Amino acid sequence: MERAERIAAARGETPADLILTNMRLVNVLSGEDYPTEIAIKDGVIVGVGDGYTGAETLDLGGRFVAPGLIDAHVHIESSLCTPPEFSRAVLAHGITTVITDPHEIANVHGLDGVQYMLDEARRTPLGIFVMASSCVPATHLETSGAALDAADLASLLDAPEVIGLAEMMNYPGVLAGDPGVLDKLDAFEGHPIDGHCPNVRGKDLNAYIAAGIQSDHECTTVEEAQEKLRKGLVIFIREATNARNLRPLLPLITPDNSRRICWCTDDRQPADLLDDGSIDYMIRVAIAEGKVDPITAIRMGTLNTAEYFGLRDRGAVTPGRRADLIVFSDLSAPHAELVVCGGQIVARDGELVVDFAPHSGAELSGELRIDWDVVDFTIPAQGEHVRVIGSTVDQLVTQHCIEPVTTLDGSAVADPARDILKMAVIERHTGQGGIGKGFIHGFGLKRGAIAGTVAHDHHNLVVIGVDDTSMMTAARAVAKMGGGLVAVDGENVLAMLPLPVGGLMCDAPVTDVRAALDALLDAARNTLGSGLHDPFMAMSFMALEVIPALKLTDLGLVDGDTFELVDLFV
Amino acid sequence: MERAERIAAARGETPADLILTNMRLVNVLSGEDYPTEIAIKDGVIVGVGDGYTGAETLDLGGRFVAPGLIDAHVHIESSLCTPPEFSRAVLAHGITTVITDPHEIANVHGLDGVQYMLDEARRTPLGIFVMASSCVPATHLETSGAALDAADLASLLDAPEVIGLAEMMNYPGVLAGDPGVLDKLDAFEGHPIDGHCPNVRGKDLNAYIAAGIQSDHECTTVEEAQEKLRKGLVIFIREATNARNLRPLLPLITPDNSRRICWCTDDRQPADLLDDGSIDYMIRVAIAEGKVDPITAIRMGTLNTAEYFGLRDRGAVTPGRRADLIVFSDLSAPHAELVVCGGQIVARDGELVVDFAPHSGAELSGELRIDWDVVDFTIPAQGEHVRVIGSTVDQLVTQHCIEPVTTLDGSAVADPARDILKMAVIERHTGQGGIGKGFIHGFGLKRGAIAGTVAHDHHNLVVIGVDDTSMMTAARAVAKMGGGLVAVDGENVLAMLPLPVGGLMCDAPVTDVRAALDALLDAARNTLGSGLHDPFMAMSFMALEVIPALKLTDLGLVDGDTFELVDLFV
Repeated sequence: MERAERIAAARGETPADLILTNMRLVNVLSGEDYPTEIAIKDGVIVGVGDGYTGAETLDLGGRFVAPGLIDAHVHIESSLCTPPEFSRAVLAHGITTVITDPHEIANVHGLDGVQYMLDEARRTPLGIFVMASSCVPATHLETSGAALDAADLASLLDAPEVIGLAEMMNYPGVLAGDPGVLDKLDAFEGHPIDGHCPNVRGKDLNAYIAAGIQSDHECTTVEEAQEKLRKGLVIFIREATNARNLRPLLPLITPDNSRRICWCTDDRQPADLLDDGSIDYMIRVAIAEGKVDPITAIRMGTLNTAEYFGLRDRGAVTPGRRADLIVFSDLSAPHAELVVCGGQIVARDGELVVDFAPHSGAELSGELRIDWDVVDFTIPAQGEHVRVIGSTVDQLVTQHCIEPVTTLDGSAVADPARDILKMAVIERHTGQGGIGKGFIHGFGLKRGAIAGTVAHDHHNLVVIGVDDTSMMTAARAVAKMGGGLVAVDGENVLAMLPLPVGGLMCDAPVTDVRAALDALLDAARNTLGSGLHDPFMAMSFMALEVIPALKLTDLGLVDGDTFELVDLFV
Repeated sequence: MERAERIAAARGETPADLILTNMRLVNVLSGEDYPTEIAIKDGVIVGVGDGYTGAETLDLGGRFVAPGLIDAHVHIESSLCTPPEFSRAVLAHGITTVITDPHEIANVHGLDGVQYMLDEARRTPLGIFVMASSCVPATHLETSGAALDAADLASLLDAPEVIGLAEMMNYPGVLAGDPGVLDKLDAFEGHPIDGHCPNVRGKDLNAYIAAGIQSDHECTTVEEAQEKLRKGLVIFIREATNARNLRPLLPLITPDNSRRICWCTDDRQPADLLDDGSIDYMIRVAIAEGKVDPITAIRMGTLNTAEYFGLRDRGAVTPGRRADLIVFSDLSAPHAELVVCGGQIVARDGELVVDFAPHSGAELSGELRIDWDVVDFTIPAQGEHVRVIGSTVDQLVTQHCIEPVTTLDGSAVADPARDILKMAVIERHTGQGGIGKGFIHGFGLKRGAIAGTVAHDHHNLVVIGVDDTSMMTAARAVAKMGGGLVAVDGENVLAMLPLPVGGLMCDAPVTDVRAALDALLDAARNTLGSGLHDPFMAMSFMALEVIPALKLTDLGLVDGDTFELVDLFV
């Protein structure tokens, strides 16, 4: 809407489209709630206060109205859905804007992958802003499908949705003053630059912040988060499917520091999004635990995030801002009963009531390029002890364990009785790569194998299994689908979810994706014996070497503290 | 400092220049104070924490260290000093950054005046950011020396110090959708845009905000400020020499809304700056009145202001930010004992310890162009009642009064017994203009006249007096100086302060300016009988028609509510 039209509508000289009446405004600017009315025209809030008339009037029966919620950091690909289907899940929960880092698809398809996300994002009313993926590949200790340098990233700023530089995971590169890393920071000077610095403390933390990085979403303890907040980072508290930092970090929040804290989901799978929600879930938990007052909790998912990212047109209910609103009955447990996004009623009682534009036309290949000649899961025994990735429930960090090896016929093998499984990462981008092999603790499979092309951030083909036959069946099944997730037992494929978009996303409706994933989880848990909430998402982070302490990529085992390849046998 | 150098220094790989030890940090991010150390190199904070070494170490004896203070809105010209001399006064009080609107000099000399301020500003370590003056002239109801359109203003953005659009005083123009006004807002889309909207409420306020304006510093009551804050404006609480809104607005501030409030001085004369201070004075008063906790009060003059203006490099003590710091002993009454600005110790115990660079070479003419043939202070009596400007102590708003007129020999004359004085505004920019004449209440002169070329915002020659002879003596004396302030009695000039820089600023040291002004005030108060704190600054706002209710410009009496010229006789 033109400025002159906004002014005229705000003065009441032209009628509004929609008037919300009989409501209480949750004002995140003043920290109050009080009765008032809201006038909306052409997607914009033009008036707050009484006396407006409009084409439609909605009596909200005394319900609360708050700004639409903003997720500070999310990888949409982790929903296993395309942006429109992801937005279907989150819009219903009152999330009206997300800031996304498309680094999953960028690691597979480079700038074409980012462009795909931008094209698809434009099909949905959800506000989707993109942070340029800073670490593609994450490090040199993996093989990815693409590499983006500073010039590539700077070129993304031409798109209006691109507003900053995404999580700078290569903190060793920052601390070492790596010229390529500094070039990226230079290219985004003056823009928001997100961080990712698990366990970086003291002088190294000072250096990381002095380099120009402004946020972090990897805190796992209050002490770590407090040091980072005190030194200038804005803290994104994260509640991902597989990294549940919310409850441990709630004691961080005080009335005096909450403005420096935002909510984010990072990676959430469809069932969690559909059932629990997104950051709306975090807000409810924060309030319910008695640690955060409701308006502060809402502010941490609206105003704080908008201000951090410089999004002046949202994050509060004021004249001139986008009409992104949620309506709910209980301030102590906000469940969006009505969601307004860009002035349009998009959801009622948790159900989407709008259709999306047809397919954007963007296409990405899902073909896997694998040299099957190198794919052999055998590990010749070369010692009595091996390094084992010690996975931790609901955390991305792992333990770096040394365990006695179990051998059979001269080979190191899985030992499900001790919950030590075999893991492999097969390069799938160039067809000229290799395979990393190792052992992992904590997945609890008693038989069979699981595999998938979702493996942060390089997204090679990752397999965890009890026996080599199951692992080969799983790997072949994934390749045959052109990417996806499978659960197998011996030569039987128990369940599968094809992810034809770059091996990361399914273009089916989110409810279908959720159903397929439910079947996979059922197979992995009930047939194969894993006790994890979501072993597929857990697996996907066991290949992410930028988070300590021990991870496996296609190049081998990586010590995430020293950023070096290490031997399997010790 | 290059990014790589900052990183190396932050890691302690290269020694710092200065280490501050034995101190408590006032952390405006976390809302705490605690012991730590600060390492500074090349003007930048590189480390917060222990273990750094540097060329110099300063033991602060347990004192507090807070970020350097930021004045959100000030017209430097109102100090009657050039930017370097203004900075001499405020740096000693711990103000390390100001955001200035050079609209006084811009009304006299246009873009040349702004360039003069930029050139002179570069002579001082004080951080001086400029908001492009949006209303030159303020309205069509005055004659100014220059006019700046949207293209002129946009051209200022080439200077790195220019960060936004200054107070949009022409709120009637905004509300009417005036194309020239909207062009200016368009030109600064995405930048901070300051407001100025005294008494604008309800739908008009909605419209003003919907137009894109983001702050206001003209609130005089809590109710007004609360409505503006709730609707999205950031509130700059102002304590000017002649507009003392601080104490009345303190009840506005709550823990929940304080992030949306900043401190500003707007207009302060040298004695106030030297004796009381700048926003440091406001912080002390806010704490002393028991309304605001100390860290919140400091935050309102540091982080809040930096965030509003998008100044990521200051406003808090964190690695990578500019080393702007104040050191003080009493958290409940912060008086800067040491001031660090850009890493340099600039003041100790209220005394500046640095020299400034020599004159920038910039020059502005101070010649007054007046058609003395039209200068006649006689007001022929044309009725029995006249409009009288009812000035109010310490406020810029006036009353619109109707009073019986006192006549003598067929002319309307001053009546000092009723404190009704004659006022005139003589056009001084083109030499082709006229003279506005009227009456004013509240100045208390018993004899003589005062005059000056400081008359917001057009800065024509304003005179207030008891008799026409004194008024003519005063006007002529000001013109002879090439601009300035005078106090006269009959044909005797009692005191004067030349302001050769545009008729607004003196290029002498601030202490000399203050001494001359003291002499003027002494004359105006003790010889002529005014009871006002500073009748010269009070006078300068009686010509500012953008603030209600009745003002006088060179074109005549202006009704500040309707923005129309009105007759003197009613």
